[in-house]
Amino acid sequence: MSQEPTGLLFVISGPGGVGKDTVIEKLLQANPNLHYSVSFTTRPKRDYEVDGKHYTFVDEERFRNLIARGELLEHATVNGYLYGTSRTRVEKAQKQGQDVILKIDVQGAETVRKKRPDAIFIFIQPPSMEELMKRRRKRGAEPPEVMRERQKLAEREMSFASFYDYVVVNENADQAARDIAAIIEAEKRRRRVQPEPTP
Amino acid sequence: MSQEPTGLLFVISGPGGVGKDTVIEKLLQANPNLHYSVSFTTRPKRDYEVDGKHYTFVDEERFRNLIARGELLEHATVNGYLYGTSRTRVEKAQKQGQDVILKIDVQGAETVRKKRPDAIFIFIQPPSMEELMKRRRKRGAEPPEVMRERQKLAEREMSFASFYDYVVVNENADQAARDIAAIIEAEKRRRRVQPEPTP
Repeated sequence: MSQEPTGLLFVISGPGGVGKDTVIEKLLQANPNLHYSVSFTTRPKRDYEVDGKHYTFVDEERFRNLIARGELLEHATVNGYLYGTSRTRVEKAQKQGQDVILKIDVQGAETVRKKRPDAIFIFIQPPSMEELMKRRRKRGAEPPEVMRERQKLAEREMSFASFYDYVVVNENADQAARDIAAIIEAEKRRRRVQPEPTP
Repeated sequence: MSQEPTGLLFVISGPGGVGKDTVIEKLLQANPNLHYSVSFTTRPKRDYEVDGKHYTFVDEERFRNLIARGELLEHATVNGYLYGTSRTRVEKAQKQGQDVILKIDVQGAETVRKKRPDAIFIFIQPPSMEELMKRRRKRGAEPPEVMRERQKLAEREMSFASFYDYVVVNENADQAARDIAAIIEAEKRRRRVQPEPTP
């Protein structure tokens, strides 16, 4: 039983368009000791995104390689693109005593729940489904069939909320970031059975 | 299944002298929406205490009457005096949507854990046993045999910490109050199964 402080692992999910990136950015700004573990993805970079900050953008060959080498804690396909979390990056930060934040889709979160039962799961929810669709429309015009697909995916994603430890409503990104910060502070004081060492 | 918001119930314990009163006072000052449910006690009022604020001071006959009428959620004897929590005050505040704070000794907390499994238990811990004894000495000189008794009681109380949901170290009362506030904010966002209605 090591006495060294080990960081906690937080998984944040939420339907596309709910504002996860903004909330996480505000959370990290206010809590510089948190370690945000950047995911790998094969999806194309969006204009506002920075490689290595929002995602590590890789091609499918490199991604398949990461899977083969057992380098990913989880991976999942969303909208036809691969997304995955680096196992070694997460473990290294935790061993250094840093609390780690992962942004993972609901499928990937299921995998992490099995592999890392000590992780804490936070779901970011929109105030309403209408509000979510309104926010998506603001991001840019999409053809009606794409919007319908997105809505169906969002409904599917929302149906996973009840498997999470915490649900934070993103009415306002600053407040949602503060709510998550409170959850992190509380969890640090939560009495827990010593977690099983990761093999 | 009522849709009305129901307040949460928080139980705060900790060894005598750890500074529960100061921490709770700071917590209530910063969070005026919290409802502190004042306990009944038969112990004599201390100089700095205010009747109806720190405790409702009653004689033993009145206390026995409260027990007989089923008015107490829990009661326990500490250092020869009776302490008890009003069930109706707690339930009324919760029904009004207020989060309720109870300061209860470790025995009383055990009773609440059985009667109210939905309650959240927070233990306030001193940075060390030496620090606790130092704080006690600062409160006023006590004969060595009383000090020894207090230490034994404190050790017994400390041994209950591992039954609590959260452990907050009171190194500094302002920080401890903020820690408890974070726990309350987190718990409001914690996904929970609808609690069984109290009979």
